Amino acid sequence: MNEFSLIDQFFNFPYPTREDIVFGIGDDAACVRVPAGQDLLISTDTLVEDVHFLSSWDAYDIAYKAVMVNISDMAAMAATPTWICLALTIPEQNLSWLQQYSQGIRDALNEYKLVLIGGDMTKGPLSMTISIYGIVPLNKAIRRKGAKPGDKIFVSGELGGACLALQFLKKPPNNQLDFSKAMKKLLHPQPRVDLGPILQATASSCIDISDGLSADLNHICEQSGVGAYLEADKIPVFSLAEEYMNHNARTLALTGGDDYELCFTIPPEKEEQFLTMIAQNGISCFEIGVIEKSKGLRIKQTNGALEVLKPQGYLHF
Amino acid sequence: MNEFSLIDQFFNFPYPTREDIVFGIGDDAACVRVPAGQDLLISTDTLVEDVHFLSSWDAYDIAYKAVMVNISDMAAMAATPTWICLALTIPEQNLSWLQQYSQGIRDALNEYKLVLIGGDMTKGPLSMTISIYGIVPLNKAIRRKGAKPGDKIFVSGELGGACLALQFLKKPPNNQLDFSKAMKKLLHPQPRVDLGPILQATASSCIDISDGLSADLNHICEQSGVGAYLEADKIPVFSLAEEYMNHNARTLALTGGDDYELCFTIPPEKEEQFLTMIAQNGISCFEIGVIEKSKGLRIKQTNGALEVLKPQGYLHF
Repeated sequence: MNEFSLIDQFFNFPYPTREDIVFGIGDDAACVRVPAGQDLLISTDTLVEDVHFLSSWDAYDIAYKAVMVNISDMAAMAATPTWICLALTIPEQNLSWLQQYSQGIRDALNEYKLVLIGGDMTKGPLSMTISIYGIVPLNKAIRRKGAKPGDKIFVSGELGGACLALQFLKKPPNNQLDFSKAMKKLLHPQPRVDLGPILQATASSCIDISDGLSADLNHICEQSGVGAYLEADKIPVFSLAEEYMNHNARTLALTGGDDYELCFTIPPEKEEQFLTMIAQNGISCFEIGVIEKSKGLRIKQTNGALEVLKPQGYLHF
Repeated sequence: MNEFSLIDQFFNFPYPTREDIVFGIGDDAACVRVPAGQDLLISTDTLVEDVHFLSSWDAYDIAYKAVMVNISDMAAMAATPTWICLALTIPEQNLSWLQQYSQGIRDALNEYKLVLIGGDMTKGPLSMTISIYGIVPLNKAIRRKGAKPGDKIFVSGELGGACLALQFLKKPPNNQLDFSKAMKKLLHPQPRVDLGPILQATASSCIDISDGLSADLNHICEQSGVGAYLEADKIPVFSLAEEYMNHNARTLALTGGDDYELCFTIPPEKEEQFLTMIAQNGISCFEIGVIEKSKGLRIKQTNGALEVLKPQGYLHF
C-alpha cells in the first residue's frame, strides 16, 4: 500500500458532523470555520520513540496518550478542543501496528468529540507530531503570565502517578493491581478540559503539568514576574506513591512529569466564585500555596523548615 | 542549553505585528483570530532526513525549503498563508547548525510575511513537521475535486527542474552555472501564492505539483471522477532538462516531483476571465490538455500517437 491508501484505510474514518469543518482529509489542506466570537488556540507536540514513549508500549497506548497530551494543552488554556492533525512517521508498513494505533487515535478523539482533519504520513524513525486546535471566547484564553502576588495556587488532582508507573516499569511491584492503577495514570491520562469554563471565569494563569509541578509552576512564575510559596503538606500525592515511596513520594509529586493535571492561580477576589463553581460541578481541586512578589520557588516542609525549591523536571537537551 | 532557551535563542524572533495574532510562542498554545468572512486552511508536512532532504544539504536550505513546501500547500488551495508552527527534532545541540536553520526559516517567512507562532523542539533523529495556516474568503478554497469534462488543464510553470537537480547531484554537469540554476529549483522553490485571487475567481480544481505532474493530476482526476487528455508538446519543460536529457526531458517533467508549480483546471465559461487576469498580472501559465469524462490519463505524443499515461511519482511506502 502507498501513503495514500494507508491514510485512507487507517485514518480517514467517518467523523461526526461538525459545523466548523468545511472539509477534512483528502486535499492539500483541511478547511475549517472558527465560530464568530471565538479565538483559535493552536498547539503542537512531537512524541519521539524512547524519549516520550517506550517502543515496548502497545501502539494503541502510544496513540491514545499522544492525543491526550495534546488535549491537555488545550485544557491548560481553558479552551475547548475541536480538531487535530496527525503527522506520523513510521519505519515500515506494519499493518497490525497501524490498526492498533489507529484505534487508539479514534478512541481518544471520540472521548472528546474531536475530529482528525489532516496530517501526513512518512517513512522514517518512529515519531509523531500532533497539532491540536481549540476555541475559547475572545480574550478568554488563560495564559502562563497573569499570576499576581496574593493569588492562590491550585492543582487539579493528585501528582506523581505517572512517574511512579515509570519506576514500576523498571522494578515491578509485587501487587499486579497496583501496577495497573499506576500504569493507567501514565498511559491514559485524562486532560482536565472539564475545568475550562471555570478557569475562563476565575483564573489569572494556568499551565498543564507535563514536565513536573516545580518546573511548570516555575514557568508561570517566570512569565508572570513573580515567585511562589508552597506548603509540602498541601501537595496532593498519588496515594500509591505514598505507600511505596514514603517520604520520597512528595519529591515525585514535585518533580515527576506526565500527570497532565493543571496548575493555576486564582486572585483573592475570584476565590469564592471559583470554589462555588468547582463545588457545583463536583470537581475537587487542591490549594497548595500562594503567589508572592519575591521571585523563585519556596516550600514549607512538613517539619516547618522553609526551603528553596529548585524547579526540576524533564529537560530535552 | 535546554529546550526552552534553545527556542528562545533561535526561534522566538521578533515578528511583524499582525492583527490576527493574539499571542504566539511562550504558552501551551498560540492564540489567533481568523478575520470575519474567511475560512481557515490547515496543512501539515513532515520532512525526514534522507527522504525529503539530504543530510549533506546546508541547514539554511533545509529550513528554507521546508517552509516553501508548506506555503505551496496554501497556494494549492488558492489561500493566503498567514502563520506556521514548527516541530523540530534534532539529534544533538549543534548551535551553528541551528543558527543557519533558524536563518533559513526566518528568511522564508519574511518573503511571505508569515509569522512563526509555535511548535516544539525535541531530541531524536533529524526531522521536522511544519503546520501552515492560511485564509481564503468563505467557500472560495479550491479543492482537488471540482474538475469537469471540458475544463482546460493548466500548469503554472516549467517542470522537471528539481528532478534534474537531483540527477546533477548524482552526476554533476560540466558547467557550474547550469548546476546552480537547477539546484535553485530544488532548494529554493517559489510557491505560486501569486495565483490565489485568480484561481479563487476562475478555477474548478487545483493541486500543487509535489509528487510529479502525472501523479498529482491523477489526484485531481480521481477525486473529481474524471479523466485527462494531455498533449506532450504543450508540457513546459525546464529548459536545461531539454538540453541535458533530450527526449527524456518530457518524462522528467511528467514524473519528477518537487517543482511546486500548480496544476489546475479552468471551466470553458471562465477561460476568458482567467486569461485576462493572468495577463493583467504578468503571469504566464501553460495550457496542457483538457478534462474528459473517460477516466484515466491519456497523452498525445509528439509523433501523434495517443498513449495511456501511467500516473507516476514519488511514493513513500
